[in-house]
Amino acid sequence: MTAGTTPIAAIILAAGKGTRMKSDLHKVLHPIAGRPMLLHLAAAVADLGTERTVVVTGAGREQVEAAVGLLGIATALQSEQRGTAHAVLQAQDALRGFDGIVLILYGDVPLVSSSTMRRMLDAVQGETAPIAVVLGFRPATPGAYGRIIADADGGIRKMVEAKDATPAELTETLCNSGLMAVRARDLFRLLALVGNDNAAREYYLPDIVMLAQAEGARSIVIETAADEVAGVNSRAELAVVEASWQAGRRAQAMADGATLIAPETVWFAYDTVVGRDVVIEPNVIFGPGVTIADGAVIHGFSHITGATIGARAEVGPYARLRPGAVLGAQSKVGNFVEMKKAVLGAGAKASHLTYLGDADIGAGANIGAGTITCNYDGFFKARTVIGAGAFIGSNSALVAPVTIGGGAIVAAGSVVTTDVDADALCIVRPPQIAKPGWARRFRAAMTAKKAGK
Amino acid sequence: MTAGTTPIAAIILAAGKGTRMKSDLHKVLHPIAGRPMLLHLAAAVADLGTERTVVVTGAGREQVEAAVGLLGIATALQSEQRGTAHAVLQAQDALRGFDGIVLILYGDVPLVSSSTMRRMLDAVQGETAPIAVVLGFRPATPGAYGRIIADADGGIRKMVEAKDATPAELTETLCNSGLMAVRARDLFRLLALVGNDNAAREYYLPDIVMLAQAEGARSIVIETAADEVAGVNSRAELAVVEASWQAGRRAQAMADGATLIAPETVWFAYDTVVGRDVVIEPNVIFGPGVTIADGAVIHGFSHITGATIGARAEVGPYARLRPGAVLGAQSKVGNFVEMKKAVLGAGAKASHLTYLGDADIGAGANIGAGTITCNYDGFFKARTVIGAGAFIGSNSALVAPVTIGGGAIVAAGSVVTTDVDADALCIVRPPQIAKPGWARRFRAAMTAKKAGK
Amino acid sequence: MTAGTTPIAAIILAAGKGTRMKSDLHKVLHPIAGRPMLLHLAAAVADLGTERTVVVTGAGREQVEAAVGLLGIATALQSEQRGTAHAVLQAQDALRGFDGIVLILYGDVPLVSSSTMRRMLDAVQGETAPIAVVLGFRPATPGAYGRIIADADGGIRKMVEAKDATPAELTETLCNSGLMAVRARDLFRLLALVGNDNAAREYYLPDIVMLAQAEGARSIVIETAADEVAGVNSRAELAVVEASWQAGRRAQAMADGATLIAPETVWFAYDTVVGRDVVIEPNVIFGPGVTIADGAVIHGFSHITGATIGARAEVGPYARLRPGAVLGAQSKVGNFVEMKKAVLGAGAKASHLTYLGDADIGAGANIGAGTITCNYDGFFKARTVIGAGAFIGSNSALVAPVTIGGGAIVAAGSVVTTDVDADALCIVRPPQIAKPGWARRFRAAMTAKKAGK
Repeated sequence: MTAGTTPIAAIILAAGKGTRMKSDLHKVLHPIAGRPMLLHLAAAVADLGTERTVVVTGAGREQVEAAVGLLGIATALQSEQRGTAHAVLQAQDALRGFDGIVLILYGDVPLVSSSTMRRMLDAVQGETAPIAVVLGFRPATPGAYGRIIADADGGIRKMVEAKDATPAELTETLCNSGLMAVRARDLFRLLALVGNDNAAREYYLPDIVMLAQAEGARSIVIETAADEVAGVNSRAELAVVEASWQAGRRAQAMADGATLIAPETVWFAYDTVVGRDVVIEPNVIFGPGVTIADGAVIHGFSHITGATIGARAEVGPYARLRPGAVLGAQSKVGNFVEMKKAVLGAGAKASHLTYLGDADIGAGANIGAGTITCNYDGFFKARTVIGAGAFIGSNSALVAPVTIGGGAIVAAGSVVTTDVDADALCIVRPPQIAKPGWARRFRAAMTAKKAGK
Repeated sequence: MTAGTTPIAAIILAAGKGTRMKSDLHKVLHPIAGRPMLLHLAAAVADLGTERTVVVTGAGREQVEAAVGLLGIATALQSEQRGTAHAVLQAQDALRGFDGIVLILYGDVPLVSSSTMRRMLDAVQGETAPIAVVLGFRPATPGAYGRIIADADGGIRKMVEAKDATPAELTETLCNSGLMAVRARDLFRLLALVGNDNAAREYYLPDIVMLAQAEGARSIVIETAADEVAGVNSRAELAVVEASWQAGRRAQAMADGATLIAPETVWFAYDTVVGRDVVIEPNVIFGPGVTIADGAVIHGFSHITGATIGARAEVGPYARLRPGAVLGAQSKVGNFVEMKKAVLGAGAKASHLTYLGDADIGAGANIGAGTITCNYDGFFKARTVIGAGAFIGSNSALVAPVTIGGGAIVAAGSVVTTDVDADALCIVRPPQIAKPGWARRFRAAMTAKKAGK
Repeated sequence: MTAGTTPIAAIILAAGKGTRMKSDLHKVLHPIAGRPMLLHLAAAVADLGTERTVVVTGAGREQVEAAVGLLGIATALQSEQRGTAHAVLQAQDALRGFDGIVLILYGDVPLVSSSTMRRMLDAVQGETAPIAVVLGFRPATPGAYGRIIADADGGIRKMVEAKDATPAELTETLCNSGLMAVRARDLFRLLALVGNDNAAREYYLPDIVMLAQAEGARSIVIETAADEVAGVNSRAELAVVEASWQAGRRAQAMADGATLIAPETVWFAYDTVVGRDVVIEPNVIFGPGVTIADGAVIHGFSHITGATIGARAEVGPYARLRPGAVLGAQSKVGNFVEMKKAVLGAGAKASHLTYLGDADIGAGANIGAGTITCNYDGFFKARTVIGAGAFIGSNSALVAPVTIGGGAIVAAGSVVTTDVDADALCIVRPPQIAKPGWARRFRAAMTAKKAGK
């Protein structure tokens, strides 16, 4: 039987209060790379093709239920915090009738990859047929982590909490991440045997390994890097895990052929797609939903979310691209320009101090400095359409809904409220009046006033 | 007698030239976290309730005197640089009649906390009644620092300059920060005994410990972290101390319940106040005088000084808040918006490309993209008042002094010079004129001209 | 004979494909600090006064030839990649008749300084008259680098590739950078003797050292820091070398008397000139061609290329200075302001939301918020001239070519198309119209429409 055919389920524990976060937001909903921690795990287990996923909730469960509800993930309530074994047991009803392998994950250990999960699943189905597979790691300072005493082939001899460990056991560097893969039938049978005869009166999940051993069943440990199983219990740990994720993503972008001049100052989102020969200057922030085609250049101080950037397009510095911004090939969005639900055609340019919201801009159009699409009247949004090759003079306001025809020219400073025909000139401007010497007299009067003050 | 009742004085040495700073600004006036180093110390000693503070000046004393003059801190001139003992002695006149404990501090060792100073004061008054308390530290590389040879209980056996130390003494890792607490009566009596029988012909402050020992009096060392007593003699060291301060402040903000996505890219000022569940994106710079209420979000690339940000307000990206910016609860200041001496009411929005200077904006008002308050005529500043629920169309200029009534609408592109009544529409706009085919003819002519060039 | 009189030539190997860069741009043309790697080396050898420089090209040679063609540097084609000795041999024709010392450099080892090169040249001409000087370094992990077994005085006993080294030889930490200095007559004579009797069937340059030794000739190694000879084979290594260069440049700027509040967030270009008492806030990016005079302040989030910044000028935050921006003494360019080919006179100010392109602005002029120079009609660029002491009201558009006389005032919101005389007022504005109650009726209608939706 291969991993591909055995049904898989995941239980994600998310009942902890997260008091140290000091937040009104549930701990597992704090984002890493723009996505809540819990949803990183949900995505990883979806990659595995899990048949069922159950999130065990407790404090703040309304927030958690709302977050996973849209994904068709079940929740199970742990109404009292009575330990990890007790928490897992709450998922039993939701998994009734399920006869495959169960992965046990933690909502606050968000970066575990689906490939590591796959290794755990494969190991449960390996030749030695272990009853449980535990994911171990070797932290820089093992400190308070539970230790795993194992044979060279990974067979677990003992799992021990740090506070119960002997000095010799404390020298062991292999620690327990808490993650496990166990067959469902074994899991719930063993959980029923776990006792709470300890100081905290809690039911501990690792106890199932020792209980299985007492039955003569073998468990094994497989290892992963400490970074991958880093947990988040405070904002400081949240920042550490974010940094770890970003470091990995930056390295990947460079390996794929992008230049990051100062990689430590580029922040990707979980789903950013970066092409080949893309150049990213220092200090660029990506939110979710961004795709950058080959050869595009992102100048410094750009802030980009939900945008599609075409091949060899040039963005920034100081470009703010919001959801729905679509930049055609070789188009240009320059400094202090904001785009939202706006399409900029191939080769079109909006180089300076512009707001393009709810707009369609044709290929090769030139949007002058200070142009603003007036897309909101306080009640409704409306669209601006600008034809190919049009030229919008500086400091113009285009009051939507309005259409500027292809090849049309809007004179500088115009407030355009009526459609402009293709190839026409539109001008909205009073005559220029000069008052000779007025400035000199004004200065004299003001200087006197200031002196008299 | 407790620390609370014994009078305290502080002497801050600030006579050094700071040549390695290569600056016209006195070394101790270079800022850390937006506050001159000397004023960090002045604030710490003020926290202790010092009765008198004396800054010993020398080169560039005019700058130092000007800086502390407003604080009611005395200065004493050391006209020649003849060593630290000589420098401290210059404060004797200013402390005449003072009969308490003297703290000796250094203007270029700016991060010593008032709690460490308090520990020093308490130790002087401890059971063993030492004559002097020296603040020691253990740097990564002791190198050229003077060493302290002490007993396990902190009793000082010997203080020795690195250049005079034996190889055995150089293996000692406990170093002398130079900071001391001594009773005034002992201090000045011992200083009078210090000689300058050394290569540099200087009077060294640490000598008083050995002089007291010769009299049979005990001195003790207490320790602190090396970071806290880091000194600044160059711009590189200034940057190191700044980084150290920032790292501590960032950790504190996170511990207090703020999310810093990339903590290493957020720069706080010495007095920044950050609420709970505040989210700060990468790359935010705070100058002095900023308060952020709970739940506010500060997007990346924001530059904020002297601003008060209300609960759940949203700021940036690219928001420039200058002194006097006050943002109401759930208000929003978006990209490329600058505020100065301007109040934005609850729920009001200024989302794009706007300058709000010397303005009062009512609750729920909507300030369109490209709005500018014309607050300056070259001589005087004037205010703009915008009523609650008003709607300012894009690219408008409001020429102050001017009032826009509550619920009024200003049409896009208006230059408003006269007050607008509540609920009225104000429009300043010439008719739109179309010239069919003009753009096509213009292009043909220009293309010909370009070709003929 | 001194180094000053012996002719020098440089051979720069640049034939490698750079496959791991995954780029359409040739590896040696990827920039460090805004300058292609190859041109860093070209500048360093020019500093030495080299008589001839030859770049050995291969894959992508058209790009390399184009890059060095303008510099009068010769190229030689290595049409097959048959090893470094073979590559150097391709330069023989270009160096025909040259009878001096040849430096062998690598286009992807860009940071070697001219002073290190000079040390190599001096060593070839030293008393012991070595036939070759090899540049060695001690990396943190010697790993796969070729080792140099040398005597205490630098005499090379053996050079060995890591894969051919004995365990004892692998413990040697001195590694071969590949850089060499050899007399031309010896170099080409020895290269002709190099064989390819090895697994890769390649001709290896280091073999000449062993061949010379067989003739009884001595070669020596001199050492440099590992950073200086770091090579670039991937985008990640490009980022590492960039970071190394930046770290050095930042330290130099601070040593010269500039304050960098967060040095790790300031990116210099290869030719940035920074004065004394310059303050640079966090997050500033410099492109090529920038000079900053003493006492200037650069606020955060500024992006500066090709600009000259006068004494005590104030720039940013969010200032975008492009090539040809010239700021007079004590002038000010504030937030969201872009300058290009524009001169701002002494004391002049452009504080907010402005675009100044192709403009000359007199001393003391005040450019209001939202001012835009309309310098482009879709075909030609034209200049705007603003006289000293002029005042440009906010949200004005100046349609070039246009001249605003000294001391003139342009009223807010004007679109200026005709020259304005000195000391005159220019106003382009229709009358303000009020429609009482209109906004209230509009709101009622829209609210109804929205409800009916």
